[in-house]
Amino acid sequence: MGTEQEISRAPIGVFDSGVGGLTVAREIMRNLPNEHIVYFGDTARVPYGSKSKDTIIRFSRQIIRFLQTQEVKAIVIACNTASALALDEVEKEFDIPIIGVVKPGARVAAAATKNRRIGVIGTESTINSHMYPRLIHEQDPDITVFEKPCPLFVPLVEEGWLKDSVTEEVAKRYLDELLAQDIDSLILGCTHYPLLRSLIRGIVGEQVNLVNPAYETAKELELLLKEKHLENPGTKAPVNEPYRFFVSDAANKFKNFANSILPYDIETTRKIHIEEY
Amino acid sequence: MGTEQEISRAPIGVFDSGVGGLTVAREIMRNLPNEHIVYFGDTARVPYGSKSKDTIIRFSRQIIRFLQTQEVKAIVIACNTASALALDEVEKEFDIPIIGVVKPGARVAAAATKNRRIGVIGTESTINSHMYPRLIHEQDPDITVFEKPCPLFVPLVEEGWLKDSVTEEVAKRYLDELLAQDIDSLILGCTHYPLLRSLIRGIVGEQVNLVNPAYETAKELELLLKEKHLENPGTKAPVNEPYRFFVSDAANKFKNFANSILPYDIETTRKIHIEEY
Repeated sequence: MGTEQEISRAPIGVFDSGVGGLTVAREIMRNLPNEHIVYFGDTARVPYGSKSKDTIIRFSRQIIRFLQTQEVKAIVIACNTASALALDEVEKEFDIPIIGVVKPGARVAAAATKNRRIGVIGTESTINSHMYPRLIHEQDPDITVFEKPCPLFVPLVEEGWLKDSVTEEVAKRYLDELLAQDIDSLILGCTHYPLLRSLIRGIVGEQVNLVNPAYETAKELELLLKEKHLENPGTKAPVNEPYRFFVSDAANKFKNFANSILPYDIETTRKIHIEEY
Repeated sequence: MGTEQEISRAPIGVFDSGVGGLTVAREIMRNLPNEHIVYFGDTARVPYGSKSKDTIIRFSRQIIRFLQTQEVKAIVIACNTASALALDEVEKEFDIPIIGVVKPGARVAAAATKNRRIGVIGTESTINSHMYPRLIHEQDPDITVFEKPCPLFVPLVEEGWLKDSVTEEVAKRYLDELLAQDIDSLILGCTHYPLLRSLIRGIVGEQVNLVNPAYETAKELELLLKEKHLENPGTKAPVNEPYRFFVSDAANKFKNFANSILPYDIETTRKIHIEEY
């Protein structure tokens, strides 16, 4: 890359196992409108939530190498599983600022709880990593954290059953044991889960604070860019493709889902062979 | 490879996106006890059912190249999605006998139906390929085939909810429209579905014939080996590791699931980097 000014105009790299990370990209678009984004969704190898740490680290390395070919200035791991399993490793290996969604989510939940009892829901791999409790305890060791993997939520969201009696029954079964622990905050520890927000709200009631790490991650990114003097000053001239989308499989299917999540319609999605990076 | 006799003692390569194909391996073990097996489960990239034809062909090529390094004498694609999307392509490219599960399943269903009305359930990609109707019509163009993708069945099986009110509600929703078409046969067009057999039986009743392609595939393999003079004559000496298992991720998790499906406990499962083949 070139001068400091050129670097500050470079895009942010955002990646996820598939479409879920678009809920994070959406928050970045809303909160940092000057920033450009290169998004990668690993749709050929989705889901990550049932896979091992080694594999998730290997996949994350390939994706970061790909994003570096797009000359990004910073990277957001917009996937709870990859943030929980791979962030510590890849931030040591790569010479580029990288943030994940787990730390911001843990921080805001620790600050928000009044009775010091927090619930966390996520994929199997995220929950088995116990990263949320570890990071919450760094903030306040007196908080008790209750965790519950919810492996059926992602397929139910992808089936489109967002407000459905089956999804409600599944959610009740998953959430009842957390509610029995008298939690006052619940971290939606998978980027698909905000799409079930109103159904989950109906089950946990108004007294439980729902924490969506996507919003907090956009805020953390803003601080990081300020600290490193990497904020895009913007330009009055229209920019060609401020947001670019890449996937490892089925670009059209991704585009349809993306257009239902994002506040505008994306035009093109390019398919790449991520295994070659 | 060496002489004809050496070749006939070589193992059969069997592959699937994950653990589901073990229901096919089990039928081969039962019906062809002299044959050795090298099984590969692509657990790093599972599931295949929501992915595109191009990607499934690319994955299948890598796996076949890996199985060739194990000097297999024939290959069984023990995955409906890969059989439907990749078999036609890979059998042209590779100089080794390859069979899938879709053709045997289609053939037996066409032979079994009395009222010429067959239902097919499977993953999204299998159903969208319309391979079952195409192959059934090659047997008898007067049969009417009704298809229904059931994307939640695999995650429900993997959650272990085999006899559960939620799974029953989901199955009713998926199967009701097929039952309304007065089918007399139903193809379980995904290797996970035989594990839901008794729940599906409870919904469709005794009058619908459930077709499990795994059994028919073992029979087709037997014919193929006879025809090509590749049958293993067997040996009285005990064989070291007649069945070998390889995966692309999380070998231990695979082993636990395998031990719940297979009639004996497997000892070791090796993890390989399938992307390098």
